[in-house]
Amino acid sequence: MEHLEDILKKIKPLDNNLLSLTQKHLDNLTKPPGSLGRLEDLVLWAVQVSGKYPPQRPQKILFTFAADHGVTDEGVSAYPKAVTAQMVLNFLNGGAAINVLARHAGLVLRIVDMGVDYDFEKHPKLIHKKINAGTQNMALGPAMSRDEAISSIRVGIQLAQEVAQSDQMILLGTGEMGIGNTTASSAITSVLTGASVDAVTGRGTGIANEALANKRKVIQKALDGNQPNRDDAIDVLQKVGGFEIGGIVGLILGGASERLPIVIDGFISTAAALIAVALKPEVKSYLLAAHQSAEPGHQIALASLGLDPLLSFDMRLGEGTGAALAMNIVDAALCTAIEMASFDQAGVSQKEG
Amino acid sequence: MEHLEDILKKIKPLDNNLLSLTQKHLDNLTKPPGSLGRLEDLVLWAVQVSGKYPPQRPQKILFTFAADHGVTDEGVSAYPKAVTAQMVLNFLNGGAAINVLARHAGLVLRIVDMGVDYDFEKHPKLIHKKINAGTQNMALGPAMSRDEAISSIRVGIQLAQEVAQSDQMILLGTGEMGIGNTTASSAITSVLTGASVDAVTGRGTGIANEALANKRKVIQKALDGNQPNRDDAIDVLQKVGGFEIGGIVGLILGGASERLPIVIDGFISTAAALIAVALKPEVKSYLLAAHQSAEPGHQIALASLGLDPLLSFDMRLGEGTGAALAMNIVDAALCTAIEMASFDQAGVSQKEG
Repeated sequence: MEHLEDILKKIKPLDNNLLSLTQKHLDNLTKPPGSLGRLEDLVLWAVQVSGKYPPQRPQKILFTFAADHGVTDEGVSAYPKAVTAQMVLNFLNGGAAINVLARHAGLVLRIVDMGVDYDFEKHPKLIHKKINAGTQNMALGPAMSRDEAISSIRVGIQLAQEVAQSDQMILLGTGEMGIGNTTASSAITSVLTGASVDAVTGRGTGIANEALANKRKVIQKALDGNQPNRDDAIDVLQKVGGFEIGGIVGLILGGASERLPIVIDGFISTAAALIAVALKPEVKSYLLAAHQSAEPGHQIALASLGLDPLLSFDMRLGEGTGAALAMNIVDAALCTAIEMASFDQAGVSQKEG
Repeated sequence: MEHLEDILKKIKPLDNNLLSLTQKHLDNLTKPPGSLGRLEDLVLWAVQVSGKYPPQRPQKILFTFAADHGVTDEGVSAYPKAVTAQMVLNFLNGGAAINVLARHAGLVLRIVDMGVDYDFEKHPKLIHKKINAGTQNMALGPAMSRDEAISSIRVGIQLAQEVAQSDQMILLGTGEMGIGNTTASSAITSVLTGASVDAVTGRGTGIANEALANKRKVIQKALDGNQPNRDDAIDVLQKVGGFEIGGIVGLILGGASERLPIVIDGFISTAAALIAVALKPEVKSYLLAAHQSAEPGHQIALASLGLDPLLSFDMRLGEGTGAALAMNIVDAALCTAIEMASFDQAGVSQKEG
């Protein structure tokens, strides 16, 4: 596999060559110019990222990366750590929210074990890429080694490269499962945006006031103890990140290097995007933020990236649930560009004057 | 057919009986309580409106009502009046944005000629309910007679009653096509919200500054000349409305009387909702606002109704395009409630403490 540096070099600024052609195509369709609003932006984005013109209907593939977090020892979550593995089994059985929304949106869902603290049996629907059985407790030391951080990124890159072999246009989506991972994401967001721990830390799956105060203390302790270097995003991932977050970083980098449009889910995926963009700023243009979640750190991370979320439904589930909804809307937008009649075809008069 | 008064009497305040049962059902699914945010609100809304528990997958039916407006003689639109009929033919041929989004969302699209100034041949996909060949020019007098206003409402009621015969749960959507109908909608919104003509009047399909100033003058002239009575919503529809708007008013009233959840599209549909709610305030709870459009009057109308739009994509096309996107999301929400595993079923641990 290529070195990370080589992957980063392959990521180019967006190609504007197809922009005016695509705009002209959209303006020839039977609607007032620009009247499909954000849907038209999504078409322009998908064409620019993919370089595929005329617009194509994408195959939609969402990866849900799962891993455990040693920091759950500090009581930062409303749910026991065992829920990570239980939810992976729920994914494999098709009973979780992401399964339902994936089926509804007609997308392919792939579940990746990046580091769950549980030995899964071989399962045709589970991609086994365990880096380690959960991270270490970041309140006591680095969450992982630098090698593990890079390995987790390489898993995501490889998965993106594999799906990019398809002749069809691919629309990628990110998702995750990991009890404790809003704690890691708040830590990453604080380091990479410069915002305070208090500002970027919320209730996650639903902790009460006392537990929230503790969660903030734990994150501050992890940052004080580990001193992640904000100028070295891999150091941030290593010290206060998670294996599923590394997987998403890699999927984003690998996807961008293969010119795949990427829909990022909520807070955890956006924290991963902060790392990916820190490694290669050009990556930002390859990303669509699916939604604005209820987590306070998410808004700060999105603002720092300059991403305007498509939906705002107060969701805070993760798994890729927001991405699945947004991918379906990107698909709908591309369908309008592909299937609508032009003014000429339909015999409709154009705008006067 | 029943008198309008009898239909209004059939519309009851929402039934809260099923609320706690549905909430309990949602909280038993494998996700933190409330973590699907607005999707959970949509499930609660659909169950409350329909009275159908457990949640059911709806058949989604969207009606696009078309009609012409005499006020186009005043140069209020960027497109010639003939486009209304041309777009209806485009709908019948499947080439418009609403056709594409309806197919994408798996919904049934029904096109209704409420008063297009064109003699359509019989077509299996066109519902012929022409009240008149377009309204009169409201700048010179009432847009229609009171009888025509009531007839247009009765068409919508009848269509809602017909689809309500189904055993399946029905999710209704509204849409429209009518060159000049943002002019009518601005006039209605000004009367029924008390906002100024300037505040509620925008560029519609895309007129320039000079034409916008003219559009505002024309609307003010229509209000000054016709003096629509804000305490008599049918008078408002008659003086400054349109036949397609009357059709939507009727669909909303008929839908609410049959306990069908109704997704309203953009500015024109919301102006119709203002009339429906003025006739029967309880109707409001039966409505979901699909999106916040780019038209300035839309925001004022939504705020007046107290409706929180689901999407905000700067769309301004009408036809039902925003409703189609939103109906697909309501469908997705109901799928989560129907298909997700419970904690017990999946063997997932519940929240601690």
